[in-house]
Amino acid sequence: MSDRIANAQLKGKIMSAEEAAQFVNDGDKVGISGFTGAGYPKALPKAIAERAKEEHAKGNSYMIDLFTGASTADDCDGILAEADAIRFRTPYQSDPTLRNKINDGTTFYADYHLSESGMYVEQGFFGQMNVAIVEATRITDEGHIVPSSSVGNNVEYLDAAEKIIIEVNSWQSVELEGMADIWRMPSLPNRVPIPLTEAGQRIGKTYIDIDPNKVVAVVETDAPDRNAPFKPADEISQKIAGNFLDFLEGEVRAGRLTYDGYVMQSGVGNVPNAVMAGLLDSKFENIKAYTEVIQDGMVDLIDAGKMTVASATSFSLSPEYAEKMNEDAKRYRNTIILRPQSVSNHPEVVRRLGLICTNGLVEADIYGNVNSTNVTGSRMMNGVGGSADFTRNGYISSFITPSEAKGGDISAIVPFASHIDHTEQDVKVIITEYGYADLRGLAPRQRVDKMIALAHPDYRPLLQEYYDKALHLAKEKKMMHTPHVLSEALSFHQRFLETGSMKKTSKK
Amino acid sequence: MSDRIANAQLKGKIMSAEEAAQFVNDGDKVGISGFTGAGYPKALPKAIAERAKEEHAKGNSYMIDLFTGASTADDCDGILAEADAIRFRTPYQSDPTLRNKINDGTTFYADYHLSESGMYVEQGFFGQMNVAIVEATRITDEGHIVPSSSVGNNVEYLDAAEKIIIEVNSWQSVELEGMADIWRMPSLPNRVPIPLTEAGQRIGKTYIDIDPNKVVAVVETDAPDRNAPFKPADEISQKIAGNFLDFLEGEVRAGRLTYDGYVMQSGVGNVPNAVMAGLLDSKFENIKAYTEVIQDGMVDLIDAGKMTVASATSFSLSPEYAEKMNEDAKRYRNTIILRPQSVSNHPEVVRRLGLICTNGLVEADIYGNVNSTNVTGSRMMNGVGGSADFTRNGYISSFITPSEAKGGDISAIVPFASHIDHTEQDVKVIITEYGYADLRGLAPRQRVDKMIALAHPDYRPLLQEYYDKALHLAKEKKMMHTPHVLSEALSFHQRFLETGSMKKTSKK
Repeated sequence: MSDRIANAQLKGKIMSAEEAAQFVNDGDKVGISGFTGAGYPKALPKAIAERAKEEHAKGNSYMIDLFTGASTADDCDGILAEADAIRFRTPYQSDPTLRNKINDGTTFYADYHLSESGMYVEQGFFGQMNVAIVEATRITDEGHIVPSSSVGNNVEYLDAAEKIIIEVNSWQSVELEGMADIWRMPSLPNRVPIPLTEAGQRIGKTYIDIDPNKVVAVVETDAPDRNAPFKPADEISQKIAGNFLDFLEGEVRAGRLTYDGYVMQSGVGNVPNAVMAGLLDSKFENIKAYTEVIQDGMVDLIDAGKMTVASATSFSLSPEYAEKMNEDAKRYRNTIILRPQSVSNHPEVVRRLGLICTNGLVEADIYGNVNSTNVTGSRMMNGVGGSADFTRNGYISSFITPSEAKGGDISAIVPFASHIDHTEQDVKVIITEYGYADLRGLAPRQRVDKMIALAHPDYRPLLQEYYDKALHLAKEKKMMHTPHVLSEALSFHQRFLETGSMKKTSKK
Repeated sequence: MSDRIANAQLKGKIMSAEEAAQFVNDGDKVGISGFTGAGYPKALPKAIAERAKEEHAKGNSYMIDLFTGASTADDCDGILAEADAIRFRTPYQSDPTLRNKINDGTTFYADYHLSESGMYVEQGFFGQMNVAIVEATRITDEGHIVPSSSVGNNVEYLDAAEKIIIEVNSWQSVELEGMADIWRMPSLPNRVPIPLTEAGQRIGKTYIDIDPNKVVAVVETDAPDRNAPFKPADEISQKIAGNFLDFLEGEVRAGRLTYDGYVMQSGVGNVPNAVMAGLLDSKFENIKAYTEVIQDGMVDLIDAGKMTVASATSFSLSPEYAEKMNEDAKRYRNTIILRPQSVSNHPEVVRRLGLICTNGLVEADIYGNVNSTNVTGSRMMNGVGGSADFTRNGYISSFITPSEAKGGDISAIVPFASHIDHTEQDVKVIITEYGYADLRGLAPRQRVDKMIALAHPDYRPLLQEYYDKALHLAKEKKMMHTPHVLSEALSFHQRFLETGSMKKTSKK
């Protein structure tokens, strides 16, 4: 194992996770690797959770402020949350146990754009970082860190923390070395243009420079990433994918896109994977991805020769595809680049490259404002992630969603969004299984018919009823820009909280 | 006069505004110059409005879709709106007559980020532009256009329109020539890094290249910009300015700012001008502005030697200062640069330069979401303008506002924002006459006390009552991330619409 730790000084720091956890104190700000279940530390979270439980049993306080790239896994966020060891968490999460702790008030969660979270740490917005815990594939002779299956905010956390703990995970293929492209923005006031003009360009190093004197522990592990299988695309996902491709075809006909000019950004999940499956049989060629996460669907596009470059900050693969990636990393690293999330999601590059963006949502209102985070305005789902980095700055930004959730009790189209993460200025196209609403260049009232047509037929009359009433009131009060009936604006959500359904008559 | 029109071909196109207006047809998409009342066309709007009235009198349809840089003036937006000649308007406006037409339903208004509106035209998101009407200081021998007191979206509109009408305004000083810095981003897929790493850098030409064959008319004018006097700073503005400077001093103490490292972005108005007056007596030196608009307060800072560079896309000066600028343009153009708004507001440059941003707002909610546009969720004020270009990408983004409006009947702090233009992820600092709320790094519940402390004392108990009730409900329902009582979330706004005041007992 320890042939993966070439540097003599750091080899001398090898210890158990339990020993290393002694460097993590109550109240510490801890920045860890990990993005969409890839490349997170596998041993320290468990050891810290154990320590928390011991301290709590003795009646002592022990909680940390936890900073990541994005979501991790049950054996990281999950066990730490279960042990009530997370006081504060940022910038993104998706673990059910942690989500419950956020919504029951145990854990404070601050939602930030993924492109900015590392920058805020560098700028001192969160105060002094105490510990960085980062998974590596290998430590080089010179003491450089070779990242594993995600890059995330590793650079910023390693730079900012007083103490560094490295986990060297031999489950990760050594052939991942060469996939990472580590480029650092100089600090203010010396920032420079990011020299990236093509999704596939490499501009940095394959490893991260660190100050070896800050390393307090090196821990060896051999544990897999969290790799969840994707569900096979259902009929609704396939319809959404079809409508998305129809929209793209229309852009080609309008001269705003070419069959070899598609630069893809895609959110993670089953619907995006259905979209990628649809692209396999489309006329689009030479597709490039400049996105956060490499998913199964992209690997298929690469294997089919349809996708020539995939740039991201992380993987999110099914177990089968993760195995394939590990076995064939040497070949895939000709096509795949992993960047710091401060680069993969940077507004500067996103705008420059002309991305076609597709992200999911919780709900959209009839004027096109989008909620990506807070269910019924209050309950945190996962966080905004990189969706706003891409949506604001992409060339054409779309949201794809089934028209309903929870077996029909939640409508994705509502009169008034109960939380807003993407404003009406930023949202361009919304797509459900019923079609697409192209909102570009339209004033609010011009958007409403298109939005109602996206809703499930069960909800269309309720939405129309609301809008008709709003129009009537707005004419009278001269409030015709964005007509609303404030007393009923949140009625869909109130009904859901009271009856379990946004529908007027149904019961669960 | 016509010594300002050096090019022979274009000299041959000189005609009256009435003749030129014949090139503007019913249903045309018309892109004009003009930003915050500077550099808008002075003759054509009146002639188009007259034509509209004549056509309407004959029972004919005659309305245009009007695209600008930003706001214009009564003798542009105002008279066109009065004549019911504007069917559609984007991306920003502030004329009272036009605002009424938007809110009574006559005119459709689409609110877009000022950095993006020209880009959308270039990308074809609004369809084919028919006419560009642009004010110039001078037309060169080669037929180049020297912009007058604003640059705005002139480049994009001149490029995209089928027909061009130039107004050459001899009221504008010829010495403005040299102030503009016209840089063009190549079209997709050939976009490049913007080569700007300093606010004061010049990267382009002093004029705009056009296709002279598209010019259908040149009209000579001699008319002033709309230059409204600023009100002298009242006690509340001075307190807000004092709190803003306290905040900046704190940033210096925390090591996040230096006395010679302040790069200013500032919204327009009396409160920002009070902030600039405060800076005159502060320890800050070598202040640079990278912003949209040059205001009186910046001219004072330049004259005092406190500001060394001011980069913007336009002026918004009082009549006295406009006269000073016209008389002394030759000297001021050493310090002042006017850029296309696609550059002055570009996310790429805004993030790179590390701006300290201050903008106004309509209302903020207790969790820090900001409404900049829709009063009571429905009635359009002016538009988002550049506030989101700067807020999202600035180094430290603040909003400054009096705690109340309409003589106390409207609170700037509400339970739930009735429209959202700046999401909780983007809003960092909010400042009223009662202090500042530094929201950086805080989860939603951690922000509430700070936000309530910013409210007017009359409103604090109402806000606290709402939050206590929301907390109680959220504990029960496990919705503690962003506690709300949906049935009362918009109660402040409902009360205002019903009684004329957000207060519980008062009557107007």
